[in-house]
Amino acid sequence: MSAQASNPANNQFANKAQAWSARFSEPVSDLVKRYTASVDFDKRLAHADIRGSLAHADMLAAVGVISAQDLADIQRGMLQITQEIDAGSFEWLLDLEDVHLNIEKRLVELIGDAGKRLHTGRSRNDQVATDIRLWLRDEIDASLHQLQQLRLNLAGLALEHAETILPGFTHLQVAQPVTFGHHLLAYAEMFGRDAERLQDARKRINRLPLGAAALAGTTYPIDRLRVARTLGFDDICHNSLDAVSDRDFAIEFCAAAALVMMHVSRLSEELILWMSPRVGFIDLADRFCTGSSIMPQKKNPDVPELARGKTGRVYGNLMGLLTLMKGQPLAYNKDNQEDKEGLFDTADTLRDTLVIFADMVSGIRVKADAMRAAALQGFSTATDLADYLVKKGLPFRDAHETVAHAVRMCEDRGCDLADLTLPELQALHASIESDVHQVLTLEGSVSARNHEGGTAPERVRIEAQKVLKALSES
Amino acid sequence: MSAQASNPANNQFANKAQAWSARFSEPVSDLVKRYTASVDFDKRLAHADIRGSLAHADMLAAVGVISAQDLADIQRGMLQITQEIDAGSFEWLLDLEDVHLNIEKRLVELIGDAGKRLHTGRSRNDQVATDIRLWLRDEIDASLHQLQQLRLNLAGLALEHAETILPGFTHLQVAQPVTFGHHLLAYAEMFGRDAERLQDARKRINRLPLGAAALAGTTYPIDRLRVARTLGFDDICHNSLDAVSDRDFAIEFCAAAALVMMHVSRLSEELILWMSPRVGFIDLADRFCTGSSIMPQKKNPDVPELARGKTGRVYGNLMGLLTLMKGQPLAYNKDNQEDKEGLFDTADTLRDTLVIFADMVSGIRVKADAMRAAALQGFSTATDLADYLVKKGLPFRDAHETVAHAVRMCEDRGCDLADLTLPELQALHASIESDVHQVLTLEGSVSARNHEGGTAPERVRIEAQKVLKALSES
Amino acid sequence: MSAQASNPANNQFANKAQAWSARFSEPVSDLVKRYTASVDFDKRLAHADIRGSLAHADMLAAVGVISAQDLADIQRGMLQITQEIDAGSFEWLLDLEDVHLNIEKRLVELIGDAGKRLHTGRSRNDQVATDIRLWLRDEIDASLHQLQQLRLNLAGLALEHAETILPGFTHLQVAQPVTFGHHLLAYAEMFGRDAERLQDARKRINRLPLGAAALAGTTYPIDRLRVARTLGFDDICHNSLDAVSDRDFAIEFCAAAALVMMHVSRLSEELILWMSPRVGFIDLADRFCTGSSIMPQKKNPDVPELARGKTGRVYGNLMGLLTLMKGQPLAYNKDNQEDKEGLFDTADTLRDTLVIFADMVSGIRVKADAMRAAALQGFSTATDLADYLVKKGLPFRDAHETVAHAVRMCEDRGCDLADLTLPELQALHASIESDVHQVLTLEGSVSARNHEGGTAPERVRIEAQKVLKALSES
Amino acid sequence: MSAQASNPANNQFANKAQAWSARFSEPVSDLVKRYTASVDFDKRLAHADIRGSLAHADMLAAVGVISAQDLADIQRGMLQITQEIDAGSFEWLLDLEDVHLNIEKRLVELIGDAGKRLHTGRSRNDQVATDIRLWLRDEIDASLHQLQQLRLNLAGLALEHAETILPGFTHLQVAQPVTFGHHLLAYAEMFGRDAERLQDARKRINRLPLGAAALAGTTYPIDRLRVARTLGFDDICHNSLDAVSDRDFAIEFCAAAALVMMHVSRLSEELILWMSPRVGFIDLADRFCTGSSIMPQKKNPDVPELARGKTGRVYGNLMGLLTLMKGQPLAYNKDNQEDKEGLFDTADTLRDTLVIFADMVSGIRVKADAMRAAALQGFSTATDLADYLVKKGLPFRDAHETVAHAVRMCEDRGCDLADLTLPELQALHASIESDVHQVLTLEGSVSARNHEGGTAPERVRIEAQKVLKALSES
Repeated sequence: MSAQASNPANNQFANKAQAWSARFSEPVSDLVKRYTASVDFDKRLAHADIRGSLAHADMLAAVGVISAQDLADIQRGMLQITQEIDAGSFEWLLDLEDVHLNIEKRLVELIGDAGKRLHTGRSRNDQVATDIRLWLRDEIDASLHQLQQLRLNLAGLALEHAETILPGFTHLQVAQPVTFGHHLLAYAEMFGRDAERLQDARKRINRLPLGAAALAGTTYPIDRLRVARTLGFDDICHNSLDAVSDRDFAIEFCAAAALVMMHVSRLSEELILWMSPRVGFIDLADRFCTGSSIMPQKKNPDVPELARGKTGRVYGNLMGLLTLMKGQPLAYNKDNQEDKEGLFDTADTLRDTLVIFADMVSGIRVKADAMRAAALQGFSTATDLADYLVKKGLPFRDAHETVAHAVRMCEDRGCDLADLTLPELQALHASIESDVHQVLTLEGSVSARNHEGGTAPERVRIEAQKVLKALSES
Repeated sequence: MSAQASNPANNQFANKAQAWSARFSEPVSDLVKRYTASVDFDKRLAHADIRGSLAHADMLAAVGVISAQDLADIQRGMLQITQEIDAGSFEWLLDLEDVHLNIEKRLVELIGDAGKRLHTGRSRNDQVATDIRLWLRDEIDASLHQLQQLRLNLAGLALEHAETILPGFTHLQVAQPVTFGHHLLAYAEMFGRDAERLQDARKRINRLPLGAAALAGTTYPIDRLRVARTLGFDDICHNSLDAVSDRDFAIEFCAAAALVMMHVSRLSEELILWMSPRVGFIDLADRFCTGSSIMPQKKNPDVPELARGKTGRVYGNLMGLLTLMKGQPLAYNKDNQEDKEGLFDTADTLRDTLVIFADMVSGIRVKADAMRAAALQGFSTATDLADYLVKKGLPFRDAHETVAHAVRMCEDRGCDLADLTLPELQALHASIESDVHQVLTLEGSVSARNHEGGTAPERVRIEAQKVLKALSES
Repeated sequence: MSAQASNPANNQFANKAQAWSARFSEPVSDLVKRYTASVDFDKRLAHADIRGSLAHADMLAAVGVISAQDLADIQRGMLQITQEIDAGSFEWLLDLEDVHLNIEKRLVELIGDAGKRLHTGRSRNDQVATDIRLWLRDEIDASLHQLQQLRLNLAGLALEHAETILPGFTHLQVAQPVTFGHHLLAYAEMFGRDAERLQDARKRINRLPLGAAALAGTTYPIDRLRVARTLGFDDICHNSLDAVSDRDFAIEFCAAAALVMMHVSRLSEELILWMSPRVGFIDLADRFCTGSSIMPQKKNPDVPELARGKTGRVYGNLMGLLTLMKGQPLAYNKDNQEDKEGLFDTADTLRDTLVIFADMVSGIRVKADAMRAAALQGFSTATDLADYLVKKGLPFRDAHETVAHAVRMCEDRGCDLADLTLPELQALHASIESDVHQVLTLEGSVSARNHEGGTAPERVRIEAQKVLKALSES
Repeated sequence: MSAQASNPANNQFANKAQAWSARFSEPVSDLVKRYTASVDFDKRLAHADIRGSLAHADMLAAVGVISAQDLADIQRGMLQITQEIDAGSFEWLLDLEDVHLNIEKRLVELIGDAGKRLHTGRSRNDQVATDIRLWLRDEIDASLHQLQQLRLNLAGLALEHAETILPGFTHLQVAQPVTFGHHLLAYAEMFGRDAERLQDARKRINRLPLGAAALAGTTYPIDRLRVARTLGFDDICHNSLDAVSDRDFAIEFCAAAALVMMHVSRLSEELILWMSPRVGFIDLADRFCTGSSIMPQKKNPDVPELARGKTGRVYGNLMGLLTLMKGQPLAYNKDNQEDKEGLFDTADTLRDTLVIFADMVSGIRVKADAMRAAALQGFSTATDLADYLVKKGLPFRDAHETVAHAVRMCEDRGCDLADLTLPELQALHASIESDVHQVLTLEGSVSARNHEGGTAPERVRIEAQKVLKALSES
C-alpha cells in the first residue's frame, strides 16, 4: 500500500463546520448541532474508545491492512491523547459531534495519514457498540464488587444479631417473632440474586460487535477473533446487522439494575420505618442523616429516603430505553444515540447507592430492647399456640379457629396470650396442658423454626457463615 | 424586636462542615454529601429562588416581622448575588447542599443578621416547592410559544399544499387519496390539544405553596395573598401538608410533555419514511441531516430520528416521577429531591425539540410528483367506486363486496381500477354508467370530501386560515 | 334511491368464515382470528356503539341518504339488539371480529337491506373512536361523582377531628404537631385537583370523530354538527386523519387516573402505617380487613394494601398506551386496537377504588390518645421554641442553632423540651422568660398556625366547611 | 396424634360469609369481597396448586405429621377435584377469596379432617409463591419451544434467500446491499439471546419457597428438599422472609418478555414497511391479514401491526410489577396479590405472539425483483468505491471525501455511480482503473463481506446451518 499523500482539500474534518461532507450544501445549524451532538456525554467513553481503536489497529497491522509504522504512530498518538484527556487539556469540540470524531481528528493532527487509516474496515456504528460494551462490562464488575461488599456487611451484622428478636410483620401487622439476623439475611439473598442477574447480563454484553462496520461487514480481510481476544471478549457478534443495531444488552443491564433498586427501595422503606420514633428499632449513624432548616430537633434518614426516590429514575431509564428501541427498523438509526444518558445515569446511580448502602449497613445501631418490646405486642406467638393444638390432635383449621377466639378474648381484655391462665386456656380447648406457656415465649417460637430457611438463631448463624465464606473465597 | 447581635459560634453555616447542626455528632461523609446534595442541578432554580425570597422579604417587612432596613439590605444583597450568578463568579459549594443554602449563606456574608432573618416563617420545604413552580411556569410559557410557532409553520405549509395529493395510508397500505395540506393540519390539531393541556396544567402549577413552612404553616402573621400577588400566582395552596409534599403538578406537566413527544414521534416517523428513497415524498434541508463516517452517499434525517428517540427519555422521566411519589407518606420526604432532574430534562427536551421542529417544518421540500405517482398506485379510489354504487342504489355492504371483486380482478391483471373499461365495470354491476371514470380520479376523490374535517382543498384552506388567524391574534 | 335487492352471494358477512372479502384467497387461521379479534373485550362498548349508530342513522335520514323507513327499521332493529344484549341472549361471534360487525350483522339479519345502509358514510375507524369517547365520558362522570363522595367523607371526618392532634411527620420523623383534620384535608385537596384534571380531560374527550370515515372524510353530504348535538358532544374533531388515528385523549385520562392512584397510594401507605401496632393511630372497620390462613391473631388492612398495589397496574396501563402510540404513522393502524384493554382496566380500577375508599374513610376509628402520646414524643414543638427566640430578637438561623443545642441536651437526658426548667432554658439563651412553656404545648403550637393553609383547628373548620359547601352545591 | 373429631362450629370455611374468623366482628362487604378476591384470575393456578399440595402432603406423611391414610385421602380428594376442574363442574366461590381456599374447602367437603390437616406447616404465603413458580416454569418452557420454532423458520427462510439482495438501510436510507438471508438471521440472533435470557430467568424461578410458611418457617419437622425433588425444583429458597415476599423472579421474566416483544416490534415494523406498496419487498399470506369495512381494496398486515401494539401492554406490565414492589416492607403484603394479572397477560401475549410469528415467517412471499431494484437505487455501493480507493493507497478519510464528491455529481445528474464512465471516475481520482466497475455491482459488494458476521451468501449459509443444527439437536 503506497504512502500516497492525502489531499488536504478533501479532509473531512477540516470542512465539518461548512458542511457535513462534500455531499452536503449547507452546514447543520447551531441548534441542530447541539441537539444532535453527543460529545457532552459520550466523552466518558473515551478510554473505552481508545482501547477499542488500539485493538482494531493492532489487528489491521497483523493482517497487513496498515503498516507496522502506521500502528506505531497510532499507538503513540493514542498515548498522547490519553494523557491529554487525563490531564483535562484535551479540547472537546461540539462541531465534531461525538467522542469518536473528536479523538480521531486529534489523532490525525498528531500523526497525519496513519490516523486517517485507523477507520479502515470499521464504522462509527460498530465502534460505538464496542465502546459501550467495554464500558458497561467495567461498570458491571464494579457493581458486582459493591454488591459483594454489601452482602458481606449484611451477613456480618446478621451474625451479630442471630439471637436478637423483633416482630416479623406481614401487612405491617405483627405476625410472628423473627430474629433480626434472619431479617437481614433476606436482603443478602435478594442482593445475591441481583448479582447473579448482573453476571448473566455480563455474558451477553461481553461479545464483540467490531467488524460489523456500518451494517454489513467489511471488504477488508479482518480478524475479528484477534480483536475479541485483545479486548477480553468471550465471543463475537455473529450477525453484523444485529451487532450495530440492537441495544438489548443495555436494556437487560437496566432491568437488572431496576431490580437492585427495587430491593434497595424495600430496605430503605424498612430503615426509615425502623428509625421513625414510633418504631425506634434502629438508629443510623449521623453521617447518613441531615437536619432541617427550620426544625432544630430533626435527624432525617436522608440516604435511605433518597435511595428510595432514586428507584424512580432507574425505573424511568429502563422505560426510556425500552421505548427507544420499540419499532426501530434495522439497522442503525440515530435514535440509538439516546441509549447512553439513561444507561450512564443508571450505572452511576447503582454504583453510588451500593457503595453508600454497604457503608450504612455497617453503621446501623440496633435497639434490641425496642425490638423485643414490639415482639411482645400483637399476639406474635398465636401461630405457635395453633401448632401446639395441632400436635395435640386438632386439625389445623380447627386449631386456627380456636386461637382466633383466644385472641379476641385477649383483645377485649387488653392482655396478651401469655397472660391467660391455664384454666382460661383450657376453657378454650381441653387438650391444653401446662407446657403451653413455654411455646408462647419469643425464644421458643424462633428456636422451633430451625429448618433450612427458618428464623432460628442456629440457622441464621449457618446461613450467615455461608454467605461470608462464599464471598471471602470469591 | 431588638437588634440583638447573633452569636457567631451558633452560626449554622459556619459549622456545616463539622456537623449538620448542634444536634449532630459527626459530619456527613463525602460520599453522602455528594449523594444527597442537589446544588449541582438545582442551582438552575437560582433566579426563581431569589424572586421568591424577595417576595417573601417584602411581605415580612409589610407585616412587621422584619424592618424596612432588613428588607433593603436583603434586596441589596440579592441584587449582588444575582449579578454574581449571571457573571459566573458565584461560588457554589457542595457542603451547602442546595441552591437555597448556598444563596442564603452568601446573603449572610454580604448583609449579616438581616440575611439570617430572611428564613423567618418559611422552610426549605415550601421554598423549593415555590421555586419549582415559578421555574416551571416560565418553561410552560416558553413551550407554549414554541408550539404556536410550530403550528403556524404547519398551517403555512398546509395552505401552500392544499391541493397537493398523496396517498392516505391506513395500516401503511394505500387507503384513499388525501391532500398534503390536510395531512399537515392533522398535526396542527394534535399540537393544538397539546397546547390546551399545557394551559390546563399551568392553572394548577400557578398556585403558591409559600407559607406552608415545613409542613404545618407558621406562627408568624404572614400575608400569603400578598406574596401570591407579587409573584403572579393565581391562587394559594390551601393546605400546608399538601403544599410541601405533593408533586402532582410536575407529573402533570411531564404527562403533557410525553403526549407532545408522542405526537412528535409520529411526525418524525412519517418524515423519516417520506425521506426514505423508496417513498421519496419529501426532502429535508441539509442543515437537519448528517452523513456517515463510512458511507459517503448517506444523508440521514438525524433530527427526526433523534426526536423519535427522545420520546423515550420523556416517557421515562414521567415513569420516574410517578414511581417517586408512589406510596410516600405525608409530608415532605427526601425522596422528593429526585423530582428535579427528570423534570428539568423533560422541559429542556420539549423546548429544544419544538424549536427545531418549527424550523424544520418550514424547510420541508415537497416532491409532489412522487406523491401523486404513489396515490395512483394501490386502488386508492376504490371507496369512491363503492360510494358510486351506493348512490346507484346498492346497500353499502353489497357495494363493498362488488368493488372487492373488481380489485381482485385488477390485481390479477396488474392494472388499476381506472384501467377497466366501461363494459368490464358493467359486468361487475349493471348500474355502472359512463360517469364512473370521473369518480375514479384523485382530484374527484379529494374534492368530494369537503365537509368539516374532510380532506378537500377548499376545506384545507379554511382550516389552515383558522389556525393562522387564531395564532396571529393570540 | 331505488330499493334494489341485495345479492346474497355478495354479502360480506355470509362469507366471513371463508375469506375476509372477495379480495382474499384464504380465511384467517383460527389462531389469527383469536389473536386479532377484539369482540371479547370491546363488546362492553355495545351500548355506546348503538347510541352512535342511531345518531348516525338519524342524520343520514335527515340529509336524505337513507329513507325514513330505513331509519325506522334501524331504530326497531337496534331496540331489539339492545334488549338481546341486556338479556344476555345476544350471540357474540369471534368470526365477526369486533362489537361493530357483530351488531351490524345482527341488524342485517333483523331488518335486511336497511341494515346494510347504516354503514354508509362512516367506517369502523371513526365508529370505534366515537364509541370509546362516549363510553369514556360516562366513566369520567362516574369517577368524578366518586371523587366528590370521597372528598365529602374526608371533609366530614376532618370537621370531626379539627382539634385532634397527632405528630406531623417529615422524613417519617416527628416534625411539628398537626391536627388530624388538617391532615385529612390535605387529601381532600389532592383529590380536588384530580377532579379538575378529569374535568379538563373530559373537554378534549367530548369531541365527535364520526364523519372522518376511514381517514379522509366521506363523499356523502353528512351533517356532523347534528350528530354531535344528538350525542351531546361539545365540538367535532376538525381533521379526519387526526380523528381516526389519535388516542391522546385516552392517554390523558390514564395519566389523570395514574395521579389519582398515586394519591390513593399515599393515603393507603398512611392508613397501613397508622394501623400498624407500633403506631396505632387508627383502626379500620373489620369489613375492609381480612385475616390470615395461618396466624389466627391477624387483622390485615387488605383494602389499602391492595389499592397501593393497584397503583402499579394503572401506571403500567399508562406506559402501555404511551408505548402503543409511539412512532405510529398516520392514519389508523391495527396497533390501535390495543388501546382498549388498558383503558378499560384503568377506568374499572379507578372507579372501584374510589367507591371503596369513600366508604372506608367513613369507617376510620381514630385513636386520639395514641396520636396525642406520639405528638408529645420527638420534640415536636422545637420550631415553636425557635420562633419564640426570634420574637425575642434572635435572627432565625441563630435561634435554630440554639434550639438544636437544647434538643441534644434533652436527648442525652432522655427528656422532652417541656421538661427543661426555666433556668435550664435561660442558660441556653438569656431572653427566655416564663411564658416559654406555653408555646411548648401542642395546643399552643397548632393554634398559632391559623393563617390560610395552616393547621389551626379554626382554620380546619373553615376549610372543611368550604369543601362540604362546594360539593353539596355541585 | 389422636383422631379427634373437629368441631363443626369452629370450621373456618363454614363461617366465612359471616366473618373472616372468630376474631372479626363483621363480614367483609360485597364490594370489598370483589375488590380483594383473586379467584377470578388465580384459578388458572389450580393445577399448580394441586401439584404443590400433593408434594406437601407426601412430605408431611413421610415425616410423620400426617398419617398414610390422611395422605391417601388427600390424594383421592385431589384427583376428584382435578377431574371436576377439568370437566368445568368445579364451583368457584368469590366468598372463598382465592384458588387455595376454594380447593381446600372442597377437599374438606370430600374427605373431612384429613383435608383440614393439609395446611399444616405451610401458609398461603409460601403456597402461592410456589404455585406461581410452578406455573411460570411451564410457561417459560413453552415460550422457549416457540422461540426455537421461530428461529428454525427464520433460518430456513434465510437459507433459501442466502443470495437474494435487498438494500441494507441505516436511518431508513440506503446504506449498502445486504442479503435477505443475512437480514433474517439478525432476528434469529436476537431471539437466540432472548432464549438465553429466559433460560437464565428459569434458574432463579426454579427454587422452592414452600416451607417458608407465613414468613418465619414452621415448627413442624418438614423436609423441604424432599418437596423440591418431588416438584422438580433445582434448589430451595434459603430465607423464609425473602421466599414469601419477593417477586423479582416474576419481574425478571417480564423484563425478558419485554425484550422479546421489543424484537418482535422491530420485525413487525419491517414487515409492515416491506408490505407497503411503495416498498413492496414481500407479501404476507392472506391468513395473517384482514380487510377494511369501507375500503374494498385493502389488505392489511394486521398481525404484525397488532404485535407491534402489544409491545405496549408487555412494557406496561413490567412497569406495573416494578411499581408494585417499590418500597414494600417485608414480608408479605396484600399488594403482592397484584402480581398475577400482569404476569399472566405477559405470558399469554408472549406465547401467542411467538406461535403466530413462527407460522407467519414461513408464509412470507419474497419479491426478489423489487428488492433488487431498490438496492440499485441510492448509491448502495459507495462504500465499496471508497474501500477500492483505500486499497489503491488513499487514507480512508480521503477516500470517503472523494466518493462524497462522486455521489453529489451523480445526484445532480440523476444517475448512479455505476453509470459514471471510467474517465469521469478517473477525474475524481487518478488511481481508479477499469476493475472499478466490478466492485460497484451488488453481487461483488455482498460477496466481499465474507468474514464471520458478514453478509456474504456463503457466510449466510454457514450461519443458517449452524442455527438449524443447534436447534434440531436440542
